[in-house]
Amino acid sequence: MDTAELAELGQQLRVDSVRAAAAAGSGHPTSSMSAADLVAVLLAHHLRYDFERPEHPANDRFVLSKGHASPLLYAAYKAAGAIENGELVTFRKLGSRLEGHPTPRRLPWVETATGSLGQGLPVGVGIALAGKRLDRTGYRVWVLCGDSELAEGSVWEAAEHAGFEELDNLKVIVDVNRLGQRGPTRHGHDLDAYARRFQAFGWHTIEIDGHDPDAIDRAYGEALSTDGQPTVILARTLKGKGVAAVEDREGQHGKPLPDADEAIAELGGRRDLRIRVNEPPAAATLRDRTTEVIRLPRYDEGDEVATRDAFGAALAALGTARGDVVALDGEVGDSTRTEEFAKAHPERFFECYIAEQQLVASAVGMAARGWVPFAATFAAFLTRAHDFVRMASISGSGINLVGSHAGVAIGQDGPSQMGLEDLAMFRSVYGSTVLYPCDANQTARLVAAMAGLDGIRYLRTSRGKTPVLYGPDEEFPVGGSKTLRSSEEDRLTIVAAGVTVPEALAAADRLAESGIAVRVIDLYSVKPVDAETLRRAAEDTGCLLTVEDHHPEGGLGDAVAEAFGDGRPVPRLVRLGVRMMPGSAAPDEQLHAAGIDALGIAAAAKLLVEEAVVR
Amino acid sequence: MDTAELAELGQQLRVDSVRAAAAAGSGHPTSSMSAADLVAVLLAHHLRYDFERPEHPANDRFVLSKGHASPLLYAAYKAAGAIENGELVTFRKLGSRLEGHPTPRRLPWVETATGSLGQGLPVGVGIALAGKRLDRTGYRVWVLCGDSELAEGSVWEAAEHAGFEELDNLKVIVDVNRLGQRGPTRHGHDLDAYARRFQAFGWHTIEIDGHDPDAIDRAYGEALSTDGQPTVILARTLKGKGVAAVEDREGQHGKPLPDADEAIAELGGRRDLRIRVNEPPAAATLRDRTTEVIRLPRYDEGDEVATRDAFGAALAALGTARGDVVALDGEVGDSTRTEEFAKAHPERFFECYIAEQQLVASAVGMAARGWVPFAATFAAFLTRAHDFVRMASISGSGINLVGSHAGVAIGQDGPSQMGLEDLAMFRSVYGSTVLYPCDANQTARLVAAMAGLDGIRYLRTSRGKTPVLYGPDEEFPVGGSKTLRSSEEDRLTIVAAGVTVPEALAAADRLAESGIAVRVIDLYSVKPVDAETLRRAAEDTGCLLTVEDHHPEGGLGDAVAEAFGDGRPVPRLVRLGVRMMPGSAAPDEQLHAAGIDALGIAAAAKLLVEEAVVR
Repeated sequence: MDTAELAELGQQLRVDSVRAAAAAGSGHPTSSMSAADLVAVLLAHHLRYDFERPEHPANDRFVLSKGHASPLLYAAYKAAGAIENGELVTFRKLGSRLEGHPTPRRLPWVETATGSLGQGLPVGVGIALAGKRLDRTGYRVWVLCGDSELAEGSVWEAAEHAGFEELDNLKVIVDVNRLGQRGPTRHGHDLDAYARRFQAFGWHTIEIDGHDPDAIDRAYGEALSTDGQPTVILARTLKGKGVAAVEDREGQHGKPLPDADEAIAELGGRRDLRIRVNEPPAAATLRDRTTEVIRLPRYDEGDEVATRDAFGAALAALGTARGDVVALDGEVGDSTRTEEFAKAHPERFFECYIAEQQLVASAVGMAARGWVPFAATFAAFLTRAHDFVRMASISGSGINLVGSHAGVAIGQDGPSQMGLEDLAMFRSVYGSTVLYPCDANQTARLVAAMAGLDGIRYLRTSRGKTPVLYGPDEEFPVGGSKTLRSSEEDRLTIVAAGVTVPEALAAADRLAESGIAVRVIDLYSVKPVDAETLRRAAEDTGCLLTVEDHHPEGGLGDAVAEAFGDGRPVPRLVRLGVRMMPGSAAPDEQLHAAGIDALGIAAAAKLLVEEAVVR
Repeated sequence: MDTAELAELGQQLRVDSVRAAAAAGSGHPTSSMSAADLVAVLLAHHLRYDFERPEHPANDRFVLSKGHASPLLYAAYKAAGAIENGELVTFRKLGSRLEGHPTPRRLPWVETATGSLGQGLPVGVGIALAGKRLDRTGYRVWVLCGDSELAEGSVWEAAEHAGFEELDNLKVIVDVNRLGQRGPTRHGHDLDAYARRFQAFGWHTIEIDGHDPDAIDRAYGEALSTDGQPTVILARTLKGKGVAAVEDREGQHGKPLPDADEAIAELGGRRDLRIRVNEPPAAATLRDRTTEVIRLPRYDEGDEVATRDAFGAALAALGTARGDVVALDGEVGDSTRTEEFAKAHPERFFECYIAEQQLVASAVGMAARGWVPFAATFAAFLTRAHDFVRMASISGSGINLVGSHAGVAIGQDGPSQMGLEDLAMFRSVYGSTVLYPCDANQTARLVAAMAGLDGIRYLRTSRGKTPVLYGPDEEFPVGGSKTLRSSEEDRLTIVAAGVTVPEALAAADRLAESGIAVRVIDLYSVKPVDAETLRRAAEDTGCLLTVEDHHPEGGLGDAVAEAFGDGRPVPRLVRLGVRMMPGSAAPDEQLHAAGIDALGIAAAAKLLVEEAVVR
């Protein structure tokens, strides 16, 4: 297409953005209009994408990091023939695929859900990593960012990661339209300010007028011919470009244009240009990802093994059996034990350094390309990536997250290193699975099982050694539990998971000495929860005592309560958990201080049983 | 002190770090040894601090961002005469003030809890902002960072913020010891790599040998004489400096030295130098922070007002009454309505742009200096700062966080903008308060009340208008609730909060038409929860039906369950919540699709009541 045609296409994208927002009565047309020329030239000349085969292994990948500019994205889909005009005007309506912010749950051409700013680039880095180190099918990753979102630290984690990894398949475009939601950005139209920052992180930078089709075209060409480093194109644009009533004006963010008909006329009226987007190269094939039978590590009952150790060994074994499994580390691989995977499969191991947002974003990007990522750090530090986990669940992303060093049981390091909120965080994620094993064989089995699930899968591991309770051939279905002690005389049920399981067993022994029989359930699957077993225990024993190395809100106790959420009566439900702010102390002292060791459990159980007698 | 004396002091700090870790049997002596000379020169020559009066308004502020180097911090306290030798060797023991990572809960000289890397600098930026724009007592903020933590995006949010705000009272020292936990950092000893990054963000940079006392001394002098921009001193150091067995070696992170006695001998043996730390300037006084009676906005019953609007008006009024209240915005002040405060009190308003980690960190820093911050963004985006909230609770920090646009009720924008996990996140924070008002007068009262509480206070506000249900003189104690419908014939209790309260009332009306009387409770205080009222309702009606615009885990339903956590029987407890992944749709369509509108509530209630009849 020549300059005039490209300009026409840009105007069409503007008109369609205005039309979509007008039909919806909401949306972000002005944020779309600033980037319309950038997208027009990309679509017409440089993107390689088969819209009929979004799964094509050599398709370029496009991420709209400024997800609120969704009208522009949908306008581009229309121009590419992927959607029809009739669908465009369903924008933001109930049941429409064209949501306020795009998601891959609904649209096959969307790589990742955006709308929480500063996430598209990090996920794009993950895809680019997959492209360069795993897929190697020659695709390029294009990310369109807003200027406002460059204030997010996650953008600079991503910039550092991409620069260090020399991701020359990553081409980022920043739509520097000067205006955020409530007013001017920090740097306005100072492209140099952004260029200095990206250059410092090892990027190639190009500064252009983002409304000059030829300049844009040249910039894309330069980006494509840049080797050895990622490129960012910093484009000076005007928000609301093309319509005087809104162009470069404050107070026009996130709302339809004041007069859509007038605006469309000012933009030259409706057009229906169709673009033939370049095909991806045909020769590309995905690398072989064969699957063998997994040979999990096997541990002897009675041995003492930390679940984090079993995780590391199992992950390495899983990587041997499954060529699609990758591991990512937040610079604590010697603690989480992902180092075992790194030794066995260095080509599928990714060091993300101390950058938990990029850690999770990389996993999301790789999962988008069909890989099965395991990303691990301390449970406490996964809170750093909470918003990324939230967005990953909106994407429907299938990722495995592993949090080690959970709970007060870590001991001396103190509260900053203790995950005491991680179960609550992961339980509240839509469609998540939350697993908390207590022994090494159980851990190994769950690692293998979680790889095959959908959605966000979380595994909580422990720092210290715990006794191996189960044989290596025992099975642990997700959604199940293990009843470790049971008799017809049980007067109460202790529900434990992870480090509190051996404590619960010791408490049961103590109680037995006092003539009190109790049931003990190992609730290794915190979500989904084994409602049937819990309900039976409630019926049989009349009282459930949950014990968790976690704050009392949102964790094991709440998971157990959920089993009675259909309105059936709960005889009695009492929770033991960490109801204080711990300091430094030895692991056993910590469990004792929190009242979740054998002594504390036994004392609580005795009180409850005796209370029940009084009643 | 002369060069030789400074070097001696550095060696003493090393020896005491080695001793503390040896006594504890754990800890991070090698990470302490690399920074010992940096701290020695700071303590001896440049820090202005009265250890007997940590509250002195003109004291410099020191933040150990690399919190694991706590042995060095405690060794410095000993050298300054703040703690005795006997206490030093209680390091990491049960009950000791000297935790694995320092916290202000236990030690009066600690500004903020560290140990989650990349947080000390952002909080330091908050303190420096308070120093420059609020306190104006001339203190300087010194932050000691590790090199590994510069991978955290939060560091670059902070760098951007400090550069833009020209925080020349901020002096950052980076201990570039080349080694992270599991191996080399990305940039090793390449000081220029870090310098380029900080310079790009507008910082003055100084590169030195971090083991040369004279060079360090000159660097601090240069930092102190630098106006108009923050300074970072990039110091080339060796991890484990001074002990050949560990110096600059991998595999020596986070553990005591292999032979402490030998190491101490190699370092020249124990010393007991005492430093007279420079006094802060005497003339400094804090600015007047007078308090008047608050004139809250008043709304008429029956009017329709969004709770976010009431929040904005109440916050502005609170700012008028209390000179210690400050507001912080994440570039959405027109949505959250902190813009009302900005208009009324621009000198106490802080724009943090789209950087939620820095938003919360700034609040934590200001709270550390005695200010009462309100930081607001969309509820969804507060998940971005989860780790900062977690660490703030470890600090015992008193901050107010406000999340607007909560739940599916926002409508068309779709799931990326909906806070559906925020209640779970904030409930699980130790010592937190969680408030979720349903009307404008309630919101105004709660805004005033939360300012006077301890710990993390969270207020959840709504985007759309809701009817004013309460008069402006009604009181809403934290930990209370309002029973809006009640009779002796109540067969069920609907527990709602926020946007589900008007839906619950409409459902009650519908049910009344069918001859079914139900109780309705407005549970505006989600934590602490009004256990007494809930228990009475359970006894009276036999069934509680909770309704929340939030995922079912960790929110209102779990809060209600908690009221029965002492083991008393819960007759029946059923939860309505958002059990799906929403798309775009109108607010009423969203509530309906999630089954939490009047229709859904009434249908669920009817089913439960009829089931009960069958039983």
